[in-house]
Amino acid sequence: MTTDQNGNLVHNQGVTAPLGFRAAGIAAGIKAKGGPDLALVFNEGPDHAAAGVFTTNKVKAAPVLWSQQVLKSGRLRAVILNSGGANACTGPEGFQDAHRTAEELAAALSNWGTETGAGEIAVCSTGLIGDRLPMDKLLPAVTEIVHEMGGGMSGGTDAAHAIMTTDTVPKEASLHHPDKWNVGGMAKGAGMLAPGLATMLVVLTTDAVASAEQLDTALRRATRLTFDRLDVDGAMSTNDTVLLLANGASEVTPTQDELDAAVLAVCDDLAGQLMADAEGVTKRVLVTVEGARSEDDALVAARIIARDSLVKTAMFGSDPNWGRVLAAVGTAPIELDPDLISVSFNGFPVCVDGTGAPGAREVDLSGADIHVVVDLRLGDGTATVRTTDLSHGYVEENSAYSS
Amino acid sequence: MTTDQNGNLVHNQGVTAPLGFRAAGIAAGIKAKGGPDLALVFNEGPDHAAAGVFTTNKVKAAPVLWSQQVLKSGRLRAVILNSGGANACTGPEGFQDAHRTAEELAAALSNWGTETGAGEIAVCSTGLIGDRLPMDKLLPAVTEIVHEMGGGMSGGTDAAHAIMTTDTVPKEASLHHPDKWNVGGMAKGAGMLAPGLATMLVVLTTDAVASAEQLDTALRRATRLTFDRLDVDGAMSTNDTVLLLANGASEVTPTQDELDAAVLAVCDDLAGQLMADAEGVTKRVLVTVEGARSEDDALVAARIIARDSLVKTAMFGSDPNWGRVLAAVGTAPIELDPDLISVSFNGFPVCVDGTGAPGAREVDLSGADIHVVVDLRLGDGTATVRTTDLSHGYVEENSAYSS
Repeated sequence: MTTDQNGNLVHNQGVTAPLGFRAAGIAAGIKAKGGPDLALVFNEGPDHAAAGVFTTNKVKAAPVLWSQQVLKSGRLRAVILNSGGANACTGPEGFQDAHRTAEELAAALSNWGTETGAGEIAVCSTGLIGDRLPMDKLLPAVTEIVHEMGGGMSGGTDAAHAIMTTDTVPKEASLHHPDKWNVGGMAKGAGMLAPGLATMLVVLTTDAVASAEQLDTALRRATRLTFDRLDVDGAMSTNDTVLLLANGASEVTPTQDELDAAVLAVCDDLAGQLMADAEGVTKRVLVTVEGARSEDDALVAARIIARDSLVKTAMFGSDPNWGRVLAAVGTAPIELDPDLISVSFNGFPVCVDGTGAPGAREVDLSGADIHVVVDLRLGDGTATVRTTDLSHGYVEENSAYSS
Repeated sequence: MTTDQNGNLVHNQGVTAPLGFRAAGIAAGIKAKGGPDLALVFNEGPDHAAAGVFTTNKVKAAPVLWSQQVLKSGRLRAVILNSGGANACTGPEGFQDAHRTAEELAAALSNWGTETGAGEIAVCSTGLIGDRLPMDKLLPAVTEIVHEMGGGMSGGTDAAHAIMTTDTVPKEASLHHPDKWNVGGMAKGAGMLAPGLATMLVVLTTDAVASAEQLDTALRRATRLTFDRLDVDGAMSTNDTVLLLANGASEVTPTQDELDAAVLAVCDDLAGQLMADAEGVTKRVLVTVEGARSEDDALVAARIIARDSLVKTAMFGSDPNWGRVLAAVGTAPIELDPDLISVSFNGFPVCVDGTGAPGAREVDLSGADIHVVVDLRLGDGTATVRTTDLSHGYVEENSAYSS
């Protein structure tokens, strides 16, 4: 439980924490090994404003292409998500599958009593790239999940479970504002975490009154500082999607700043959970670059350090090998003076003015949290990127994913 | 033994294959664990033309700064190289150490009978970043190694041994041109291999008659196509150096094209040896991108695929997970159409027009060599990058390097 910058509490409840949202998670038989693999988030209204941020990968999965198109209207009534298959690189047939899933859900919701069109439904998928989804299993399950929808904590948590792939725990967060409106969210993603998001699916909900434009602003501000600065292995997914749905059920209209802060707090909490559960992680590593000419420069440098395989293997070995940090930052396409750079590990100076500090080789990095701070001493630009170590577990998990 | 593009044979002999070069490798006590750690390459003349290519990392080791300065004259009489310490991030004192090493060698060569100035000597270092070199051991050894210098195969091979760090075998290559002139070379580097070179030290020698400008042209053409396209872990060293020395001892003046081809052939052979001996390698992977709008585009895309941790772990697992190749290439900042992309593994089509090909999941990648070919079908641009898999061995070796 953490707080946002206005001191409001962030709880471990998910998409159904705000009023007027239902969710469910069931086993549709998409995953070969069984288990929950289909999730639904349903907005009961009265409003249906929505915004989304998607992968910038040029190779986009069919559900991303579908959901981007749907989001142009700025409204969503529901989101259907599956694990067990990414529906990426599946051609026109894959796009048809995404479309048909939305149509099936629209029909099921209409039969259930809420007149819904396919154009009000976003579709998200995660799993192996390149295979068609088993539509014979998926379509009947879409009708089934509508009947399973519930409110409260359990529906949200069931949904958070159903979108897991190599995640070991479901990720949920929520914020209850003292003015009696709420933001909730769920996330999945334990590999391919990277800039411009990662195979990361995130659904955020709020019962605040907010327009699609306000949601879009809040979402872009939040993702820029959270999911965009989470970089586990430099890979970017074909399926990354972050959605924010608002229904106004609280009848409270927060200011843009209040909305921004609340969405940021929930995203930040979820991003921290994603880092902590990344594939094979044994260290949670924060890389802060300060003293850069600009925030952009700081971010570029922090990202290069956070992606460096030699820095990451050193972290796995609890090895205070600061020279690798210098070598990495030296490749950043930004202004820097090697003789001004200082580095600390967990507050202990290991490099001052570009050369080693006394005791640098003896710094104890055996704990699970490592904070690398690099000071370029050229300006005020600061940025922090969350990453992990590069471990045997990472290699193990990723060398046998599709087989 | 391979051939250059003109059909000339490339042999496994090193820097002393050309006439008029001597070399040596001895144990100076720089490496804590012992073993050869100091190498010398000496040009007996009559000419002393030379060219060099250095790391583009902004954090440059002291010996790189020294050698870049020396090379401005376009001449070199000798190169002194040490393993066991990079002399990087060592401040002004580190630069003084490199300078003093050159002065000590100049004095020793002058005493030995060859009047030499420190400004005719390049210095190369490799090893851990951040520690001063043990000058009390290094300086006496500099005098000693001058007396050890020999010609023929043994001096060259001793030198190739002395520059090894985590390399498991010395790397040497040479080309004997039918017109009776020769090019030889040695290389070290098994980690930090990357674009713009890597902790990679390479010394090339030739007994051809060539000016410093001709050598510079030949060297840049060769490194662009060989060492610059070897990318093991995306990291770039503070110490990368490739030097080419010519003495005219053969009295043959090749054309620029002949010189280019010969230097390229030796560099290509050495680059292949570096890939085969990279840290923890279990697979030798060639990534070719063809059909790009330009060679530059093809190279950018090939490099992104070659650096992708998810692609590299899949290769380690012999897993034909072609979706990761698509996801990686989709992040390249180049023009591409996802629906036109085709991919093959070892000649077997796994993805055609952006979707999976029949049998793609069953392709056998259990052998040590994997050739990934990606066709963008947009133009004529082609480039190949050499890389390796990401293995447990890589993690093991790099998580405990400095300790």
